[in-house]
Amino acid sequence: MTAPAFFPQDIIIRKRDGGALSRDEIDFFARGVVDGAFADYQATALLMAIFWRGMTPQETAWLTDAMMRSGDVIDLRDLPGAKVDKHSTGGVGDKVSLILAPLAVACGLKVPMMSGRGLGHTGGTLDKLEAIPGFRVQLGVPEFRAILQRVGCAMIGQTPQVVPADRKLYALRDVTGTVECIPLICASIMSKKLAEGIDSLVLDVKFGRGAFMKKKEDALTLAHAMVEVGRAAGKPVRALLTAMHQPLGRAAGHTTEVVESIECLKGGGPADLMEVTYALTGQMLILGGKARDAAGARQQMEAVVANGSALKVFREMCAAQGGDARVVDDYSLLPTARKKLEIRAGADARGFVSEVDALRCGHAIMALGGGRAAVTDRIDHAVGLADLIKIGEPVAPGARLCTLHANDEARAARAEALIREAVKFTPAPPRQEPLIHDLVQ
Amino acid sequence: MTAPAFFPQDIIIRKRDGGALSRDEIDFFARGVVDGAFADYQATALLMAIFWRGMTPQETAWLTDAMMRSGDVIDLRDLPGAKVDKHSTGGVGDKVSLILAPLAVACGLKVPMMSGRGLGHTGGTLDKLEAIPGFRVQLGVPEFRAILQRVGCAMIGQTPQVVPADRKLYALRDVTGTVECIPLICASIMSKKLAEGIDSLVLDVKFGRGAFMKKKEDALTLAHAMVEVGRAAGKPVRALLTAMHQPLGRAAGHTTEVVESIECLKGGGPADLMEVTYALTGQMLILGGKARDAAGARQQMEAVVANGSALKVFREMCAAQGGDARVVDDYSLLPTARKKLEIRAGADARGFVSEVDALRCGHAIMALGGGRAAVTDRIDHAVGLADLIKIGEPVAPGARLCTLHANDEARAARAEALIREAVKFTPAPPRQEPLIHDLVQ
Repeated sequence: MTAPAFFPQDIIIRKRDGGALSRDEIDFFARGVVDGAFADYQATALLMAIFWRGMTPQETAWLTDAMMRSGDVIDLRDLPGAKVDKHSTGGVGDKVSLILAPLAVACGLKVPMMSGRGLGHTGGTLDKLEAIPGFRVQLGVPEFRAILQRVGCAMIGQTPQVVPADRKLYALRDVTGTVECIPLICASIMSKKLAEGIDSLVLDVKFGRGAFMKKKEDALTLAHAMVEVGRAAGKPVRALLTAMHQPLGRAAGHTTEVVESIECLKGGGPADLMEVTYALTGQMLILGGKARDAAGARQQMEAVVANGSALKVFREMCAAQGGDARVVDDYSLLPTARKKLEIRAGADARGFVSEVDALRCGHAIMALGGGRAAVTDRIDHAVGLADLIKIGEPVAPGARLCTLHANDEARAARAEALIREAVKFTPAPPRQEPLIHDLVQ
Repeated sequence: MTAPAFFPQDIIIRKRDGGALSRDEIDFFARGVVDGAFADYQATALLMAIFWRGMTPQETAWLTDAMMRSGDVIDLRDLPGAKVDKHSTGGVGDKVSLILAPLAVACGLKVPMMSGRGLGHTGGTLDKLEAIPGFRVQLGVPEFRAILQRVGCAMIGQTPQVVPADRKLYALRDVTGTVECIPLICASIMSKKLAEGIDSLVLDVKFGRGAFMKKKEDALTLAHAMVEVGRAAGKPVRALLTAMHQPLGRAAGHTTEVVESIECLKGGGPADLMEVTYALTGQMLILGGKARDAAGARQQMEAVVANGSALKVFREMCAAQGGDARVVDDYSLLPTARKKLEIRAGADARGFVSEVDALRCGHAIMALGGGRAAVTDRIDHAVGLADLIKIGEPVAPGARLCTLHANDEARAARAEALIREAVKFTPAPPRQEPLIHDLVQ
């Protein structure tokens, strides 16, 4: 055994005292958390020191790169076409990926997407896809690549060989109060995305009640950090800042979100959901060289929805990943809840909806059994929210606020209470906040 | 298994955000690091957060108490007489404990002393005692108590049952850059001392080149924190701030320090060593109710040195702990180095000694094989420094700077080079800095 190039405590002390780490030190750290040269109890001391002292853009880029190289990096260079992915920092009702990937493929891109599972009040793309009977998200790289080639998009979970340093570090951060740290969040997201073999990336950085970042400034800081890391890696990255105060669309859960996603691809999606989907996919088309600007992209996307080719890609991806593509035409093939309960406004409801608190809606899904408090929890795909009322819509006594899809009465009662707390009214039409804020590039 | 009262991450986050921890949270932490409810990787994140955010005096007192209660607390209440101990933050040539304990006992106190081993450039009392053939420092509590009763003092290593939380936390701090943190240092020292069953305590908080604290302000802050913790525990504590720029006395090592300690008890000790020993022992006598002031204490101490009763206690302790008490009269029974090499000043030496760098002297002892770089290293008790020149003494070409006790020529050469770097000269007599600074109580 050769002597280690560094002692972990020297690296910890440098960061503790506010210094910047060298590329070699950061490499040693990212490799060491995987191979044990950097013990867990040393890694967490360094994570807390990073939380305290921060990291320079250069350090963040090096950490991202070192984490990416801690495992396999997928090489898709031999695959023709521009490989562009999208990542969202997560929210409630955010089923954009399910619509965006087929849409982008129908417009000529390749979308190699590795996604995550839901935790807490936020949902996860993999869980939503698994509502489709037979849909497999745990594919190896060869199958991932074959589906990408044939269909144009594939949506899978991370393989254990990809970015093991992130899996280790994320598990440690989760139990040591070091999650909410911009450079660490940035390196975690970007290392996984850059390991997918993409050419460029669009980020949906959400802020607001239902988002991980509550404040727009924090979201903006994170967006800039991620765009910067992309630049350092030679991969164009664009980030849109989007509001996540109320759930996106009118459905939240798993089956309910799959149905809404298919409706979008059929041309019947809710306005807010389509606005975010078109904005993000549009940036992908621009990065992938398929459109010159957002207006040109919009035309193409509307066309592939109208002519059914986006929906066709969805069917093909479904079938390629083992899912029952007949769900596209028959929603009853999806897991269905025993009860559908309409929640209606009380006798004092007057005026307009001023708030539909996304965080409380997320908690309502958890109350129904459709979320995870811990990563090991099982979820009920059938339950969720549909027909959700939106901010700005008029209300009167008896107006429907939402339809609960529930499998248990006591759980439904808890969810109903949360929905009633989530929805607030105001006498005058409320000011409509924009959904899409800054573009960072 | 009942649910834990706290989640470690909540405690980490509170401290991370600058909050103060509750007594229950601190108890959970100190218990949890021992029983595993607080994982090592969570403990180190909290330690770094404490390093960053600090602890209030109240939190420090609670942590000390919780650490003390993590193991056995020795109860000496049934033993007659005042039980008073002394602790030093460590230096080079600091053999005060070996002289002070017999001195205090000869003046009527009981001294239950648990000491440590040397690490890096600082020596440890246990290692010095083990230079005496047969001397056992690993005694159980019943034997410790019996010797205390019969002899009046006993000097042993920590038993594994005493303050296990400190052993665990210290090992973690050592490898995570969280050593130099006043509240953690304070709790580490005080929890061990309060677990000894003492009535009161005198602290020697050293600062300077050869001390753990380089700056006097830091030493003063630590002294105040420890006195405060003693107050909270209902145990009077007094701290003396003493300078540790040059080694204490003229000997450093193990055999050489035992010889010098016995010389002190015989009345022939170097002035600086006796000054510090009398000052610290005097405070013990005041706390133990044996003297009204430093002058009265000094009279008593000089008397027990002059009439041989302090030396008699040393002999008795030696014999009680299995050591060969004949070393008192025959130093050749101690481990003896093969070579004694005098280091003499060069042809350009003129004027006075302005500096004898204690840190370099400590490194010289390590170079000779008489120190530990890692806790598992073995040490050579025979090697060390004797006849060390002191700051302010006149020099001329050929003046003796020091006598090296060495077992290896190459090692001796390295040590000589370090001693030559350590000793500096000045044409005019240098300003003599006081040895004893503040008394904190």
